Amino acid sequence: MASTYYLGTFIQSRSQTNLEIVKHGTIHVSDGIIRSIHRVGEDYSESDSLLPPSQLLRMLGYDITEPLTIWEIPENHFLFPGLIDTHIHASQYPNLGLFGKTTLLEWLNKYTYPLESSLTDPVRAKRVYTQCVNRSLQNGTTTAAYYATQSARSTNILTDVLINLGQRGFVGRCAMDSDLQPESYRDESPKAAVHDTKVCVAYCKEADKSGRVRGIITPRFAPSCSRDALRGLGRLLADGEKDGLLCQTHISENKREVALVKGLFPECSSYAEVYDTYNLLTPRTVLAHGVHLTEEEVELIKSKGSGVSHCPTSNMALGSGNMWVRRLLDKGVKVGLGTDVSGGHDVNVLEAARMACFASRSVAEGGKGERSKISVEEALWLATRGGAEVLGLKGKVGGLEVGMVWDAILVGLNGVPFNLCGEGDVNGAPNGIHHGGKGAKIGGKVDIFGWENWEEKVAKWLYSGDDRNIRAVWVGGKLVCRKM
Amino acid sequence: MASTYYLGTFIQSRSQTNLEIVKHGTIHVSDGIIRSIHRVGEDYSESDSLLPPSQLLRMLGYDITEPLTIWEIPENHFLFPGLIDTHIHASQYPNLGLFGKTTLLEWLNKYTYPLESSLTDPVRAKRVYTQCVNRSLQNGTTTAAYYATQSARSTNILTDVLINLGQRGFVGRCAMDSDLQPESYRDESPKAAVHDTKVCVAYCKEADKSGRVRGIITPRFAPSCSRDALRGLGRLLADGEKDGLLCQTHISENKREVALVKGLFPECSSYAEVYDTYNLLTPRTVLAHGVHLTEEEVELIKSKGSGVSHCPTSNMALGSGNMWVRRLLDKGVKVGLGTDVSGGHDVNVLEAARMACFASRSVAEGGKGERSKISVEEALWLATRGGAEVLGLKGKVGGLEVGMVWDAILVGLNGVPFNLCGEGDVNGAPNGIHHGGKGAKIGGKVDIFGWENWEEKVAKWLYSGDDRNIRAVWVGGKLVCRKM
Repeated sequence: MASTYYLGTFIQSRSQTNLEIVKHGTIHVSDGIIRSIHRVGEDYSESDSLLPPSQLLRMLGYDITEPLTIWEIPENHFLFPGLIDTHIHASQYPNLGLFGKTTLLEWLNKYTYPLESSLTDPVRAKRVYTQCVNRSLQNGTTTAAYYATQSARSTNILTDVLINLGQRGFVGRCAMDSDLQPESYRDESPKAAVHDTKVCVAYCKEADKSGRVRGIITPRFAPSCSRDALRGLGRLLADGEKDGLLCQTHISENKREVALVKGLFPECSSYAEVYDTYNLLTPRTVLAHGVHLTEEEVELIKSKGSGVSHCPTSNMALGSGNMWVRRLLDKGVKVGLGTDVSGGHDVNVLEAARMACFASRSVAEGGKGERSKISVEEALWLATRGGAEVLGLKGKVGGLEVGMVWDAILVGLNGVPFNLCGEGDVNGAPNGIHHGGKGAKIGGKVDIFGWENWEEKVAKWLYSGDDRNIRAVWVGGKLVCRKM
Repeated sequence: MASTYYLGTFIQSRSQTNLEIVKHGTIHVSDGIIRSIHRVGEDYSESDSLLPPSQLLRMLGYDITEPLTIWEIPENHFLFPGLIDTHIHASQYPNLGLFGKTTLLEWLNKYTYPLESSLTDPVRAKRVYTQCVNRSLQNGTTTAAYYATQSARSTNILTDVLINLGQRGFVGRCAMDSDLQPESYRDESPKAAVHDTKVCVAYCKEADKSGRVRGIITPRFAPSCSRDALRGLGRLLADGEKDGLLCQTHISENKREVALVKGLFPECSSYAEVYDTYNLLTPRTVLAHGVHLTEEEVELIKSKGSGVSHCPTSNMALGSGNMWVRRLLDKGVKVGLGTDVSGGHDVNVLEAARMACFASRSVAEGGKGERSKISVEEALWLATRGGAEVLGLKGKVGGLEVGMVWDAILVGLNGVPFNLCGEGDVNGAPNGIHHGGKGAKIGGKVDIFGWENWEEKVAKWLYSGDDRNIRAVWVGGKLVCRKM
């Protein structure tokens, strides 16, 4: 297979608190897998890093007579593991920013169900899903766990879009047969809820033999499912163990929702116990939100090995409350980040990462103490390694290590020129600022003045980065988005 | 004078809760002033709005034989009053995103003072201020109340930059003579604190005869000033009454800061009383933050007619707490929005507006009740009319009314094409998404599918808009930024 060599700066989380910054390194990828990594200071010297690429590669023992591609990473650019979105509703994408003053339960009825049910129109579904997945890729998300809609047909369209656009992902049909759901938008029976779930999982398996796009069992949330549906989905999940089949759902997002579940399932002592009762709390389960989990529930989730998708942007927008992430991390519960489009108003995982920092500060301020604060390093760990663990992809994606798949992004920051003239020019861009006209720079909001160290550049990226800073995206070694 | 006519959709706040959406209107501007406004449905019919512009203008009685310019507003675009940033530290711009886990008082010492004091280098100051003001304009801010640094010379460079770039603004030199400030970065005496403030105010008056750029008295915050400095600045403020001279400072941002002020000014019963004691609490005073104000302080501020700059982004980032905006609005205290760069991590007033919505939801959730929630309409009112009131510019900017100055922005949203192909193309942009390469669309994040009403389009803009959606900016009738 042809080889690709990446030469320059790369950055990744080594552990929850350790962000590795390699100012110069080489990464060799072939067949979509990272074959070797060399680091300046360890494998070669600073002065070697100035050698022409082919000379450096030869020095490191690579056979560069084979067909190869070389990417030299420019100044103020770095490679980073692809971002991982552990919770996103592709079907709600057109509703970004629309929630008025509602909280969860009204929001579902007022904004969400009408839009989702309209996606039985396949033309509309394809347009919405394409735009959503494209935007997600543009923001550097290489793996996403999607909710589609209740309709199997519409859900399979999302699968097609993912396969075509090249993102790694999980596609979930929302199982929802309870009579709390609108009559016009629900599964007609528990049997149908389970059957249609099976159909969608099978569709993925058939349509994408590579396993990059996979089905995921998706009971929407406890109140939307009958006991029989939950039982059937639990069986399906058990049956899928050998294939590593995952399950995703919502938990304890909002206080009124928690009360509702208590009323609907009086035989269970907690929301988490509802899922456990029906064998849906497993190491292959992704629980979105978990804002109001009790100590007992956290213990239960930990003991079952399930993961939590933290969705701070959405929690803020819907006034759900701030999740105490530190508690979960301290207990060793797996945690990743979710954009939760369109409860969350941004498809960008980086926005979720910064909101995780902000939310953790509110938690600290609210009495849980300084330790509750999430650092830049931790936020980026959550956005990559944490997400990979939650989605059962630990060791495969989320980092830059030999043997891992090349799911990566190239991040570029904007160097502020020295010759700013300080005078207005309405038509041009005399000072390097993105004016957006012809020949405009890609720009983005992150301004590097030149005196920042790499830790500071990374913090600036976390807090001000947007899709413009994602200059290239690779999934499984394939370049799926390029802006330079 | 030459006339300009704007034909198409315009939107503005009429009151705190009433957002006016005129699907088709005409606005006539000459000499930088709005001369007349016509609205479809009131002054002409829907079918008239389809007439060629010159015919419609003639029909409305305009003399279009004079030299004139016509702007036809394209689909999914609208005119809006320029955004108003009531609190921004231009000198801290390069530190956007850098705050680690600090809260206010450590943040000042660790990040802020070292950067600010480095701006005594005039080359560096010009580069930083130019980039900051440019970015602010690119984000649609037509008026901003700036803090520069302690250095008068460096502060005057910001004045020059503002004059050249065409933004309306207030430039404040930070008066800071207390020995709590670092020895290397403070005024050498109360006398110097007052003198240098005078120098900077006079510099503006001399350099910009139009009054677009004005000096503003800026005691940094109570702990950074001696009693004598506060007294002297209070006198200066009284002397400036005839010129409408303003004063800006910080108040009750952080609990430890409040405790510090209590310790430093034991003779005053509250933080607000410190400023009142020195005659700094006036109708021309802008108080940033006010997160932890007591009922008595709110009453005092109201009775003195001072305004509050609400800076929710910064409050979230520095873990200062969430301000209860509804209380201030209910009492009739003037409130506007501030980005508070670099406590806030974004120079975009729209980001402050959406964070105001989010913060208000936390306040509601925290026990202050549903009414505490700020709506889309209110957030946009705060970003325009509210800010104008706080900065003493009511009736001049912040709205689109006859007699007001033409400080306005053209907002453009992205129409999602119908022919999305759903297939990846790494080099092109087959689906209308901004790829950033040659000929790339300006794009932005706001996707309009075509079924949204105008209220929804505005909500989408509020929650997902960034600088890319600001397609043109006018200040005092002059086009100062154009991206189409």
